[in-house]
Amino acid sequence: MIRHSVILKLKSDINSADKRAFFEAVDKLAAIPEVQKFEVLKQISSKNKFEYGISMEFDTQEQYDSYSNHPQHQVFIQNFWIKAVEDFLEIDYVLL
Amino acid sequence: MIRHSVILKLKSDINSADKRAFFEAVDKLAAIPEVQKFEVLKQISSKNKFEYGISMEFDTQEQYDSYSNHPQHQVFIQNFWIKAVEDFLEIDYVLL
Repeated sequence: MIRHSVILKLKSDINSADKRAFFEAVDKLAAIPEVQKFEVLKQISSKNKFEYGISMEFDTQEQYDSYSNHPQHQVFIQNFWIKAVEDFLEIDYVLL
Repeated sequence: MIRHSVILKLKSDINSADKRAFFEAVDKLAAIPEVQKFEVLKQISSKNKFEYGISMEFDTQEQYDSYSNHPQHQVFIQNFWIKAVEDFLEIDYVLL
């Protein structure tokens, strides 16, 4: 199991329509093959600056790579992520 | 559901005995009341500097607060965390 996650902060001047479109596009990532346990999260700790999280799991590195390279994921990055996200951190876990 | 997690980097000069003792102490945190889905994780993304993660869930903020204030957790912070950890980031999630 590989748990891929990203914690993010949206641009402060994003309007509500673009924010809604961003999260609708995020939700559709769950349909990419081999994506498991897809979650969209709100970050609530005051000890970091991030606002949201996206988390998913893959059985193998090959499935993870396939997701990363999937056209739908690439289009999402170009059409939604780059326009909406101010800062982010990718975090990937395996069980210790 | 509140998912409390911390992503951390150990001190670079920690010796293997102290590292083992640290993770043994981490494992015991799972026994604090109301802690659910306790996980100790290895961070594998090259896109951040952190090495490990600890994740757990609580049903309510009150349970989370009770964990934070629990004597076993406080002793862990004083006796293990401060000595072993070089840097960390707390991340808390709720489902969006």
